Amino acid sequence: MDVSHFPKNPVIDIHTHILPREWPDLAERYGYGGFVQLVHDQPGCADMVIDGKSFRRVEENCWSAERRIEECEQHGVDVQVLSTVPVMFSYWAKAEHGWDLSRLLNDHIAELCRRYPHRFAGLGTVPMQNPDYAIKELERCVRDLGMAGVQIGTNVNGMNLDRPEFFPFFSAAAELGACLFVHPWEMIGGERVKKYWMPWLVGMPAESSLAICSLIFSGVLERLPKLRIAFAHGGGSFPATLGRIQHGWEVRPDLCAVDNPYPPRKYAAQIYLDTLVHDAEALRLLIGLFGVNRLALGSDYPFPLGELQPGRLIRGMADLSESDRSRLLGGTALEWLTGKIHR
Amino acid sequence: MDVSHFPKNPVIDIHTHILPREWPDLAERYGYGGFVQLVHDQPGCADMVIDGKSFRRVEENCWSAERRIEECEQHGVDVQVLSTVPVMFSYWAKAEHGWDLSRLLNDHIAELCRRYPHRFAGLGTVPMQNPDYAIKELERCVRDLGMAGVQIGTNVNGMNLDRPEFFPFFSAAAELGACLFVHPWEMIGGERVKKYWMPWLVGMPAESSLAICSLIFSGVLERLPKLRIAFAHGGGSFPATLGRIQHGWEVRPDLCAVDNPYPPRKYAAQIYLDTLVHDAEALRLLIGLFGVNRLALGSDYPFPLGELQPGRLIRGMADLSESDRSRLLGGTALEWLTGKIHR
Repeated sequence: MDVSHFPKNPVIDIHTHILPREWPDLAERYGYGGFVQLVHDQPGCADMVIDGKSFRRVEENCWSAERRIEECEQHGVDVQVLSTVPVMFSYWAKAEHGWDLSRLLNDHIAELCRRYPHRFAGLGTVPMQNPDYAIKELERCVRDLGMAGVQIGTNVNGMNLDRPEFFPFFSAAAELGACLFVHPWEMIGGERVKKYWMPWLVGMPAESSLAICSLIFSGVLERLPKLRIAFAHGGGSFPATLGRIQHGWEVRPDLCAVDNPYPPRKYAAQIYLDTLVHDAEALRLLIGLFGVNRLALGSDYPFPLGELQPGRLIRGMADLSESDRSRLLGGTALEWLTGKIHR
Repeated sequence: MDVSHFPKNPVIDIHTHILPREWPDLAERYGYGGFVQLVHDQPGCADMVIDGKSFRRVEENCWSAERRIEECEQHGVDVQVLSTVPVMFSYWAKAEHGWDLSRLLNDHIAELCRRYPHRFAGLGTVPMQNPDYAIKELERCVRDLGMAGVQIGTNVNGMNLDRPEFFPFFSAAAELGACLFVHPWEMIGGERVKKYWMPWLVGMPAESSLAICSLIFSGVLERLPKLRIAFAHGGGSFPATLGRIQHGWEVRPDLCAVDNPYPPRKYAAQIYLDTLVHDAEALRLLIGLFGVNRLALGSDYPFPLGELQPGRLIRGMADLSESDRSRLLGGTALEWLTGKIHR
């Protein structure tokens, strides 16, 4: 993608979500329910509603480019990487409808990026329920819409990302030079993680580790060394359990190394993670294991579980060198977005 | 429990599993299947078999006290805390059978501790499917058998530990001064975590975080500040996601703080974790967040996913002071086992 409009040494937030202010009634458009609609019931506030039931309250910064830019200025963020809200993935829908919805959401993000090319970069969404359609939409996102790549979920209707039917999609992304952002959704655990927001606090970190392990152990990352793939929330529970995962691979190759002969630690130098860990010790762990060149600021803006002042954790760590800080705040993101070394 | 036979400044491994060399045929004893039997099919080797199907191969060090003591001498471990293999919990069985099996396993461990009081400390198992029986067996373990406490699973037939019916059990443990060791088993994820040993590599860390979060958010730890409770595998994914969990509590008290008004970080000073993280960066994270006084060597001996040379990670970290190293290798364990300060 073209980053020529970005300021020099930009601060880039790779993990932000956006919705259009409005979109067609999808139940009407496709003939069945289950889709999200945005109900603007108060000034500057709206309800994400699924089949009449409130899913989440959102505010103006979820759809207004101008409000987002104002907040970026307050927070010292130069560029937001825009992606849809994971609940919009709708992988459960009929493939042609998922495809249609993806186009609608992607056209919206692309339009904002065209309008504010110094402020926004775009990640599309693709109908992973049909990898052929997903590849077509990925190609359109990158070639026609000028996007950097796409965001996908950690699973597709409960299928992990190691399933062979997804390989052509990952291969196409690598081929195209598109970057991927993998975000947890439809969290494992079911009834076990119902209370205390545990799908978000325990399920999401497990989803991310599951996705990373699936891509490592299946050999997808081995077969596609040029794939630029980033994982949300600092890779969830993967980094802190990498020692365990590596040791598991060492002692039970009969279970772990069946599809890929190389050790999990190898891929710490290949994947990207955002820095959304809310704790300096946890970020130090990421830096120690992955290095600043694999880590990029991500805030989950504009949602409350995100870093409310994007970049605050990185800026507040006194033990970071200026060059490391600059990598975390933008340098790594530039490389992930473009595939070109910016050092 | 009595630790007067331990050597001075002992190296204690709080996380080791043991089985009797043999036990009655449980399908015959109880009238239905699903239980583990040990089939000694080779010299020094046996198969853990469930209903005729191999579950896991084990070696002599899984049942022979003498072989274990030899290996402890090789590894520089003075004392092993013995607990059963989690698959033996059998919470799914009829309560009276779970109780009977618990007594059988606990009598075995207690006998070894009596025979080698300078080498072993005991943790019992209790039939959590019936908290009344569990309390009775806990009391027997501590009062009659001289055990330090008991080991329980992260869930009981899919129920998290915050369920009100378990509170009397935790309360009894606190009252008795018994220590608890919480071990992941029957991992969440089902079909999602089938391949690549992922129940062990992704599911177990999530189970531990789920258990810790359940006990924090429900207020069990708040109501029982004297409960000495330790979690296996360095608390799984909990420590590295504590920042996220704390932030979740801060921004969505309506979801997280419904049963306990205090923040998750508060309990980092109250729970114990073993050190089984297989990575120096990960152990540094634990030390940074919890401090050496909450961390105790645990190896998962004699299983391959454990630390094959117990204490190696701790001994190999050049940046630890001698007093911190000594806390990790035994000082914290002594306090957790006895409830008495040993500094």
